[in-house]
This record gives sequence, structure tokens and C-alpha cells, in this order.
Amino acid sequence: MTQEQDHGRSTAAHGSRIDAYIDRYAARAAGMVASEVRALFAVASRPEVVSLAGGMPYVTALPLDSVGELVADLVARRGTVALQYGSGQGDAHLREQICEVMRLEGIEAGADDVVVTVGSQQALDLITRIFIDPGDVILAEGPSYVGALGTFSAYEASVVHVAMDDHGLVPEALAETIASLARQGRRIKFLYTIPNFQNPAGVTLNAARRRQVLDICHRAGVLVVEDNPYGLLGFDGEPMRALRADDPEGVVYLGSFSKTLAPGFRVGWALAPHAVRDKLVLAMESAVLSHSSFSQLAVGQYLATQPWREQIKTFRELYRERRDTMLAALEALMPAGCSWTRPAGGFFVWMTLPEGLDSKAILPRAVAERVAFVPGTGFYADGSGARNMRLSYCYPEPHRIREGVRRLAGVIEQELVIRDTFGTGSAPSHSGVDTPGPDVA
Amino acid sequence: MTQEQDHGRSTAAHGSRIDAYIDRYAARAAGMVASEVRALFAVASRPEVVSLAGGMPYVTALPLDSVGELVADLVARRGTVALQYGSGQGDAHLREQICEVMRLEGIEAGADDVVVTVGSQQALDLITRIFIDPGDVILAEGPSYVGALGTFSAYEASVVHVAMDDHGLVPEALAETIASLARQGRRIKFLYTIPNFQNPAGVTLNAARRRQVLDICHRAGVLVVEDNPYGLLGFDGEPMRALRADDPEGVVYLGSFSKTLAPGFRVGWALAPHAVRDKLVLAMESAVLSHSSFSQLAVGQYLATQPWREQIKTFRELYRERRDTMLAALEALMPAGCSWTRPAGGFFVWMTLPEGLDSKAILPRAVAERVAFVPGTGFYADGSGARNMRLSYCYPEPHRIREGVRRLAGVIEQELVIRDTFGTGSAPSHSGVDTPGPDVA
Repeated sequence: MTQEQDHGRSTAAHGSRIDAYIDRYAARAAGMVASEVRALFAVASRPEVVSLAGGMPYVTALPLDSVGELVADLVARRGTVALQYGSGQGDAHLREQICEVMRLEGIEAGADDVVVTVGSQQALDLITRIFIDPGDVILAEGPSYVGALGTFSAYEASVVHVAMDDHGLVPEALAETIASLARQGRRIKFLYTIPNFQNPAGVTLNAARRRQVLDICHRAGVLVVEDNPYGLLGFDGEPMRALRADDPEGVVYLGSFSKTLAPGFRVGWALAPHAVRDKLVLAMESAVLSHSSFSQLAVGQYLATQPWREQIKTFRELYRERRDTMLAALEALMPAGCSWTRPAGGFFVWMTLPEGLDSKAILPRAVAERVAFVPGTGFYADGSGARNMRLSYCYPEPHRIREGVRRLAGVIEQELVIRDTFGTGSAPSHSGVDTPGPDVA
Repeated sequence: MTQEQDHGRSTAAHGSRIDAYIDRYAARAAGMVASEVRALFAVASRPEVVSLAGGMPYVTALPLDSVGELVADLVARRGTVALQYGSGQGDAHLREQICEVMRLEGIEAGADDVVVTVGSQQALDLITRIFIDPGDVILAEGPSYVGALGTFSAYEASVVHVAMDDHGLVPEALAETIASLARQGRRIKFLYTIPNFQNPAGVTLNAARRRQVLDICHRAGVLVVEDNPYGLLGFDGEPMRALRADDPEGVVYLGSFSKTLAPGFRVGWALAPHAVRDKLVLAMESAVLSHSSFSQLAVGQYLATQPWREQIKTFRELYRERRDTMLAALEALMPAGCSWTRPAGGFFVWMTLPEGLDSKAILPRAVAERVAFVPGTGFYADGSGARNMRLSYCYPEPHRIREGVRRLAGVIEQELVIRDTFGTGSAPSHSGVDTPGPDVA
């Protein structure tokens, strides 16, 4: 028996190694490969590991008694509606309530222009489905949300990053990128932006720049997709005015109850110009027929009967304390040469390592030292981000955040010793799609 | 002012007529246009109309008290899990329970090969996403499920219908179609089939043909996608053995709790060969991150604490009575020249009108007479079905079914008079995508 035959037999015996369909997938499936990072995150979910990787909201802060009562009441009063199919656009009353939530950010909109989706992730998927042919350009901040990049890649979009600084997207960079792409004859379909407490960078687009970004996109005929899951979770003063508030025809706004209530219902939405909304509803029906009536009515019941504004305030205070804890720990413990952003809301700090260090190479060592983070490369479509990592403070208790930062600082110090001895830190691991699972997105 | 300018202004004033994005959509969005049939279904949802159009299960037959208790208990005991993000593949315990359900149809499978989806509609969407490049061929029964055709069209697949008779898909026709496509050099990606109590035709693939269909597809290297929402809702004896039970590597099986429990949780699943399952999970994460934990745990809790097999029996008895009622009424009331199928389970009867009649043209008249159905053309990708209509008996009470058939028979009789007077029935309305909303799919 030749070695090749033997190899063939042993993998067949294992059952799961040979993909009989390998030559039959669609072109878009080529990029659907799990990264080796995922295995590490499985380890990172052990209780002894402090995970600064996850983007999970701290749902323990919810009034579980009240939620239990309201879902029971929902089944008793409206069970046959909650358990039945609903409309593709979503429950009409919930859409009214969503308009009320958006009003907090200056948005005046009618329920008829809202489509309820399976989390704002699905809104992103449907918008991409409607607008993107393979090769079309999407502009996105660099870095940008890993889950959005995964979706854009699934539709074979070409993502072009636009520079960001501590005040968010840089308007001049946006204008230059658009002009340069126009010169190359490339078609820009939309700008994807997370203006508030950006995931992963933690920075916020300031008010002056919002006007500029809208103007630039309007002039260039570029649709703006405003993804705003964290907008109500600012630590200072009133929520910022949404981009959508000043340009109803030029912006598709994506919202979510995942961070202001709970992700477990998977209720998000898109607010879109009327014609786009029509297409979204048809795309929604083709994708899932309709969202869960039960989930939608439960969220509606929560908004109607619970002090939801107070609950958001509770979340804000809780996350503010954790942000403070993380920033203080970073300040006290991180070695010289590390820098990081200072978020005014949301869940994330974006750290930049000293020259010569590679965050993905460091991750296995960090997990061995019982701390996890998300390496920076997953947040770029172009391979950037090797010196970056996303640290989240939303889920661990403050004393665990301090301990996590302490462990991470120790790992980075060791890496610096290696770098100073051998001229480089740990070798980068081989590449792959750095999409962590949904629990850390 | 020219007439053209005036026209432009008045439509702008109406606000919703001009689509500023018309030249920016993806190619796949071109087919996303609502049909005029939708407006009629809005009328058909009025209480005075007997809807034989909807595919809504009769959830009133559920033990609402028990469901209310179990969701309250779920929040009390496992609230922080139910309200949190879950894994992209779906809750591990629910996937075990799903394997137990599938065992009723002879399927032996591991929970690791199951992916929980937002209804089986999403499983269909994800399978299509993974396999279909524009122009790829999907084989499907003629007629086939309208929601599947919508999804296939959204991915720009080319659907080729295979003939069906009272015993389901015709194996000889399948073999011929595959051979003919091969001669044309066209690429068949999968066969989409609903073997049990097919939607819309109500027919079932017999046991002998199941083996033949698997053999033909295996030899041709064509994946089988077995969509089986109604398999446990047969009126005679034990459930049929699933195609998947005899070919684990060649079949992707789609299941759903929408008809055996309730559609309101939107819990369906795909069981796939291992490598395909990997891609499904990644596609799922890119589409929605994860399904609702709350929905999944509620279904799991229901299966763990309630007599779900008894409940399915209750549904079976209830639908059997309604099927009997409909068949008896059709027999007694329909004019000569009409014919229809005799389903042994599921929700639907497929009727064929006499020569010269057009079901879509009849629909407005029927709605005026307070009865609704779904015209046949929506169930074909190739414009066939003008003489067909789908009649569903799942939702209306038996006396309403009788009354609905009586009204429909009256309308058809009038049409026959028109035909015999003028040589043709009511003129067909203009075409469009005949996708009814999710409540009637």
C-alpha cells in the first residue's frame, strides 16, 4: 500500500476530514473557513480565564423576575399571536416603539419605514444582499466590526478601509478615498460606519465631522449605513444625534435591543428610505419568512411595561465603572510603548502594542496565562492590525478586569523581553479568517 | 411646464414613488418586486373572508397554560443564558433533542451535525448561499414551495422543475432531466424535494421511489435537499422513513418545529454531512450571529417537560378532520372538470381547474365573494400553474372550510359560464412575483 492510499483510508476512517462537496460550493463559500483562533476561544471560555474578548452584555443586571412575569403574561393574553407566524416586516406595534427609542437620538421616522430583523446582524446581511454584487466596494472604518467584515466577505464585496482617529472617521481621508476609487472606476455601494463608541476602536465620531461625512457621501452618491448598537450607552451626557436624523434619504440606520435590553431575543432593526425598505422586507421574507413573533412581542411588552430608560441608565453606570477600572489598570500596569483608546461609552478599548509585537502570536501565551482578547487582524479586511488587540470591559466584574489586565501586562512584558533578546516577539501564527464566534463578536 | 416635469414633481410630492437607489441595487435584487397578489391577501385577512390561502398552523390547539408556565420557569431558572448570545450552531441540548425527534423517521444522527436555524426557511437560505452561484441549476418538483423558489431566485439560481404525480417525484423524469441538463453542460447543484405531503401538491413520495431518487442522485453526484416540515403530520400509520435515513452523506435534511409545535419561536434546523455543516455554521454566523437563545431554550424546555408526541397526535387528528371536510366538500360542490389531490397528511390540496380558466384571474372575484386561495403560478419558476390553485385546510374550522369551498365552487361555476359564453374565463392579470407574505407561505 502506498502512503497516499494509506492516508486516504485513515482520513476516511475518521469520517470528518474529507469534504465530498469541496468542488461544488459557490464562489462565495470559498472564504467560509474557520480560523484557528476559534479553538483558542473555546479554551478561553473556561471559568479560570478572564475573557476580555467577549462582547457579551452583562444581562445579569436585568430584572429577571419582571421579565419572567411579562413573558408568562404574554402567552396568557396573546399566546396565539406570539406563537404564530408574523409579517415579514415585523410587528407593527413594536415598530412604533422602535421609533420612540430612536427619537432619543433625534430621529423622526414612521413605523412604516422600519423592518424588524434577527439582530442588527441580519439587517447588515440584508442590506449587503440588496446592494452588493461581487467586487463592489464598501467603505468601512479601519478597524471595523468583525461581524460586518464577515458578512461583506460572504457577498464577495471589496472592503476599503478609511482612516479613523480619536474623533472617529477622518473626513479628509473619506473624501480622498472616494476620489481615488472614482479615478480607478470602482463602484462604491455604501459607507459602513459605527459612529458611536465604535467596535472595536471605542472612538466616537464628533458632531462637526458627522455633518462633513454626510456632505461628502451625499455629493458622491454614496449611501451611508449607520450601525448604532451602542448609541444609548454613552457615559457622558445626552446621546449623540444620529447621522440618520439629518439625512433620512441618504442613511440606512441599524439598531438593536441586544445591548439596551438583551441579545437573547435577537431583535434588531433597520430604518431605511422607503424604496430600500420595500426590498428589505422581500429579502427578509426570502431569508427567514419572518422574525419570531414571540421575541418581538416580548420586547414590545418589556418596553410597554418596564422602566426601560432607567434600565439603560443602570447599564450605563455599570459599564462606566468597568471602563474606569480597565483604563486605570492599563495605566497602572501596561509596559511603556503600549497605547490605547479611551472610550466614552460602549464596550471596547483598542490597544496598540509596541513595535515588533504581534497580537495573534501572543494570544496562545495569554490564554495559557488565563486571559483572552481578540487579535486586531480580524477587524481589518486588508491584513492590518497585527499590533492591535480589542479589550472588552462589558462582561467581567471589575476585580476580574483588573486581574485580566495584570495577566495581560505580564504576557506583554515577557514578549518585550523576547523581542529585545531576539529582535522580534513570538512568531505570528499562520493566517485564516479571524472571526471569533458570536459570543465574542 | 412639460407633462414630464409635472409627472416628476407630483410623484416626488407623494414621496414614496421614486427610488433614488434604483441604479445601485445588486443584480440579485432585480427580482425583488412585490406582486399585486399581496394586496389581495391583505384583504383576504379580514374575518369575513374564509382563507384557504394561509399555511398557518392551528396554534389554538396548544396547551397555552403549560407554555406560559414553562417560559416563566425558563427565565427564573436559566434567564441569564436565555437572554444572552448563543453559539452560531445552536444550543447543544436542543440539538440532542432534535436528533430524538428525527429518530421517528429512521434518522440516526449526532447533535454535532445539526445546525439550528431561524425556521427551516433560513436553513434553505443558508444551503442556497453555500452552494449556488448565479446560473447554477436547482432541480425542484413542479409545483414546489413558493418560499423556496423565492430564495432560489434571490441567489439567481436557475430552477428546473421535475414532473410529479400522485406518488410524488417521478424517478424516470428525474433521470431524464439530469441527463438532458448534462448534455447541455449545465451544472446541477442540488435536488430540492418535499417528500411528505408536499407543499403545495399534497402528494407523498412512495417508498420504492425514495430508493430510486437516492440512487439516481447518487450516481449523478447531485446533493439532495430534503425539506420535511410535515413528515410527522401523516394521517395514516407511522411516519415515512426519511431520505436522509438511507443516505447520510448525500442528503441535507431540513426540519422545523413550526408545524409540530409553533411557528412563533422560529426554530428549524438543518442536518448536514459534516463538511457542509461546518460551512452552514459560518454562514449562519455571518447571517444572524446566532438564533435567539430564548426561542431555542423555550422549545427545548417544551420538549423536555411536555407530552410533545401526544400534542403531535392532537394536531394530526385535527388536521385529518379538516382534510376530510375539505375533500368531502370539494366532492359535493365543485363543478365537473375540476380535479384535486388527496393528501395523506400535511396542510394542502392542489386543485386543477377546467381548461380555459385562470386561477390568478379568478382570485379578485373569489376575494369579493369572501374566499381566498393561492394561485398556482407562484409555485412554478417557469410560468406554469395558471390552471392550479392551492387550497389549505390547516387553519379554518371545519364549518368554515365547507363554507369556503361552497363560495369558491360558486365563483368557478360563474367562470365556467363566462368561458362557455365568451370562449375564455376572466382575463389573467399581469404577471409579477407571486410570493404571498409569510403568513400564507
